[in-house]
Parts: sequence; structure tokens; C-alpha cells
Amino acid sequence: MAITVVGSVAFDSIETPAGKRERCLGGAATYFSLSASFFTDVRVIAVVGEDFGKRQEAVFDARSINTAGIERTKGKCFAWEGSYMDDLNEAKTRSTELNVFASFEPKIPDSYRDSKFLFLANIDPVLQRRVRDEMPDVKLVGGDTMNYWIKDHRPALLEVLKGLDILLINDTEVRMLAGKDNLVQAARAVLALGPRALVVKHGEYGATLFHGTKSGERSFRAPAMLLEQVIDPTGAGDSFAGGFFGYLASQPELTPGAFRRAMFYGSVMGSFACECFGTERLQKLTRKEIDERFTVFRELTHLD
Amino acid sequence: MAITVVGSVAFDSIETPAGKRERCLGGAATYFSLSASFFTDVRVIAVVGEDFGKRQEAVFDARSINTAGIERTKGKCFAWEGSYMDDLNEAKTRSTELNVFASFEPKIPDSYRDSKFLFLANIDPVLQRRVRDEMPDVKLVGGDTMNYWIKDHRPALLEVLKGLDILLINDTEVRMLAGKDNLVQAARAVLALGPRALVVKHGEYGATLFHGTKSGERSFRAPAMLLEQVIDPTGAGDSFAGGFFGYLASQPELTPGAFRRAMFYGSVMGSFACECFGTERLQKLTRKEIDERFTVFRELTHLD
Repeated sequence: MAITVVGSVAFDSIETPAGKRERCLGGAATYFSLSASFFTDVRVIAVVGEDFGKRQEAVFDARSINTAGIERTKGKCFAWEGSYMDDLNEAKTRSTELNVFASFEPKIPDSYRDSKFLFLANIDPVLQRRVRDEMPDVKLVGGDTMNYWIKDHRPALLEVLKGLDILLINDTEVRMLAGKDNLVQAARAVLALGPRALVVKHGEYGATLFHGTKSGERSFRAPAMLLEQVIDPTGAGDSFAGGFFGYLASQPELTPGAFRRAMFYGSVMGSFACECFGTERLQKLTRKEIDERFTVFRELTHLD
Repeated sequence: MAITVVGSVAFDSIETPAGKRERCLGGAATYFSLSASFFTDVRVIAVVGEDFGKRQEAVFDARSINTAGIERTKGKCFAWEGSYMDDLNEAKTRSTELNVFASFEPKIPDSYRDSKFLFLANIDPVLQRRVRDEMPDVKLVGGDTMNYWIKDHRPALLEVLKGLDILLINDTEVRMLAGKDNLVQAARAVLALGPRALVVKHGEYGATLFHGTKSGERSFRAPAMLLEQVIDPTGAGDSFAGGFFGYLASQPELTPGAFRRAMFYGSVMGSFACECFGTERLQKLTRKEIDERFTVFRELTHLD
């Protein structure tokens, strides 16, 4: 079933111990949609400036991603510059230019309205909420957020959480959102805010799914790939979300087994994203490579 | 098959967010042997002072641990005081009194000499090497070390590594020992120093086994338990080592499957150790509880 994703399409300038790239195509919606496109149809809602040209569009087209909802407007794309020189697990932002993103008003094309899956990538919770309200018939809503919204836009974020089925955030964010240090206690507190499931991403240590049920929480842990070299971790979390959500959308039923496999596919996609700068690896990836790595993950974690 | 372990028996004074305890029975050899005793016969080599009394001895006796190699001498036991107030993953040492441990000369009782498994817990590598040389007929030798020996006693430590089958250390230690940040590259560099296998403990994120083979490395990742409250992490690493090594010693053959299950049992034992102060939880543990948690670990990580 088709996924609609709303989020950023951007240009990233990145420095890591492996090198430097200027103005790679990036943004949460870009990574998410490329990753999810290996599993199901994807439709993007975003805004771009005049510097978004045929070359960038071709990246989406090559994966048959619907870009009818990418609004072209005067000005420049959102631009981010950051480095991972001290710690591959944490980006240091050097500059952020919102540009056209500053006045982003998501518009949902009519052709997107039959989407059964909706993903609210990391943007202003006010916009997340608006898109969610405009698509009342979706079957499953996932979302992401970040420390900035958790700290300074909490009331708006809490409104988003009430309408969310699955929240995907990292260790620091879940602890900040819950105000608790212990992961299990923090997860329980976040589930009480609305989401039926919570995926906590642990970077190089994989991810944990907390599933709220009437009889308590059920959990599942997916490993991360043992990568010999992390070239660029930018977009790994969004690629995880794309793999996780994309796989769920491809399944006839959302069984506990489907959620477990989705965790593995999320982790697989996150690992590929780190292997090249920007979206390079996702662009040349094949479904065969994805399934081969899924098998490696099984061998890495299963007793027999 | 019986394991001989050489290491420290100590008194620990511990402060964690959950409370405070004065002079708990502790030390790497204590945690290791209690943990391993659920799987096989364990024989300890250590030194204690006059403050090691019937109450402490009873802890070993209750688990049928052979203490013939625990030398009683004049003076006081090794004493450590530390806290985990800022970070449950890292102890801050407040004081260390070596006491009788300062002049420890391990003596191996004749009744230990038919042990097929030997574990060199974290002590001076010169002593580790000596014990290893005096037991040439063991089938499998495991060992631990710490940042102090890696930094300031490297030549002696490198001699120990040459005679080791399995090294069990944590993330920081493997990176320090290898001088490499990337875990896979660091593991490969450490395997090149001698050990046939390396277990890297990731604290709350589980552990990874790197197995050097002619055709490359094989890896396996075990999760950590999702604990709602960590009372006291002291000894968790030694309890992991005891569960891992104890399980291996209980197996008729050291197959890849046995190593995988040993990783799970290690992680299970490490998780129990954190549930109470000092050795309290290991003292009242049952094999049934261990196997039940093993099943939980399988459910936490397995796709079906």
C-alpha cells in the first residue's frame, strides 16, 4: 500500500573522517522515500527552491517516487552543513539555512489522498499535525521528531503524539521526551503519550521496538550491521524509518512477525545509508542486496 | 568440565542512584565464579585477608565453588569504593586499597591441575601469564583486562594475549588496545595479537563475538536485557564472562552454536547481576530463572 511522507528535501554539505561533499541531495523526506521505495509506492510532500533541478528530480524518478507533492517555489532549498569529525554518532551542525522551508505550507495532492500509510518526518509539529488531520483515512501513521521540537515546542508535539501509531526517535530523544534516564521507563512514559508503538534507534547498536499492549509492553531488538567503515551517517535514521515503514506497508497484515521483520529491514536500510556519502548508496542499491543483508542480520543474531 | 579462575576477591563499597552499600563481597573472581557455578564446577585462585570470614566463605560454599586456592594471609582484603551517580554505565572510583592483593602470588593447588578451562580475570598481566604457563594442559583459556594494563603494561599484556583463546573486554578497552575507533577494524587488530575469539561487551546494548577463522571473521551479537531498573552494575562484566565461559565448559563440543548460546548465557548472567547490590542476586538465583531469561532473550531478538 502507498505511503505518503511529508518532510524536508535539502542540500547537505557534509564532512566526515572519510572526506567531504558539498551540496549532496539530502533531507529526511528524501532518505525516507528512497529507502521505502524498495518496498512500496511512495509519495512525497515537500518544498524546494529553484536550485532543485533535473538532476535532483532524476534521483526520485529513478525509484518511481511520486513527486507531485513537491512544491517548486522561488528561492533556494533548505541547506544544512555539518560534520562528524569528533564522533560518527553525532553530527555537529555548522550552519542551517531554512530558505524556502521557512514558509513551508504542506499541500496534499488529490492523488495522494488514498494513501493508507502516512509518515510525518522531522518537521514543525504544527505542520505534522495539519497533514495528519487532512488525511483522516490512513491506516497507520508514523512519525519522527528531534530535540529542538521536544525542548521548545512540546505542547504542539504532544498533540502530534496523540495521533501517532508509531514514533521513531533515538536514545537521547526518548529520554528527553520522557524525562527519564532508564530506557524501559522512558519508553513506557512515551507510549502513555499516545503512540501504540515506539522504535528507539541506538545508532551503531541497532534499535528497540516497544509495543504497547493491554497486557503490557512487548519488545524486540534489531542489531546494527558491523560496518568496517562508516563513510557518512547522514540520513541513516531516516533510511531506517523508510525501511521499517516501507516494509510494513508492503505487508498484507500488521502481525507481530511483520513488525519484527520491519525492524530488521529498517536496520538493513540504515546500514546501507552509511556506506557512501549522501544518498549515493541508496541510489545504486538493489532489492537483492537488501535481502542478502537481511540474511546476514539473521545469522548475526539468531541462535540456529 | 571444571574451570579454574584466577582474580580478585574483594570488598566493594558502592553508591548508585538506587542506594548505597558498604563492603559488599565483590571482586572479579567472585562474580565470575558465582556466575559460572550455575553451569559447571569452578575452582578459584585468589588471596584474602583476615577480614574474609565465615560469612564470605559461605557464599562460595553455597554454590559448591572450590576455594582451596584462596590463600588466607595477614592483612586486609582488596577494597574498592566507587559510585555510578552520573552514569550507570561507568563507575567512578573513589578509592582502591590493594592490601593483601599488592603482594599476590597465585598458587595453584594440585587438585586444580586437571582443569580443562582456565579464566584469567582482570589482574596484573604478569600474574595472568604465570598462571597460564603453569597450566599448559588446559583446553581453553579466556581472559579479561582493563584500561590500566592496556595503557601502562602493554608489553606484559601482549604476552598474555598470545596465549589466550578468548579475550573478553568492553568497547573502550578494545578501541584502546587496537588504537582504532571502528569496532570491526579494532576487533580484527586485536585478533591479530593472538586470541582466537574476542567478545566485546557493550553494556546496556549487549555484546558482540568476533571469531577469527581462516576464511575471515564470523560475528554474533547478543542483546542485553531491557531492565526497568539497574540497581548496581558492579560485576556485570565478570558475571557475563562467568556465564559465557561456564556455559562453554559445560558443552561436549565447542561448536559455533555453543559459542552463540554462550553469548546469550553471558548476557543473561550480566543482566541478573545488575538487579541487586553486589552479589545478592547471583546468590539467590536458580538455574530455572536463568533458562527462563534465556527464552526471553530469544523472543527479544528472533524473527520467529
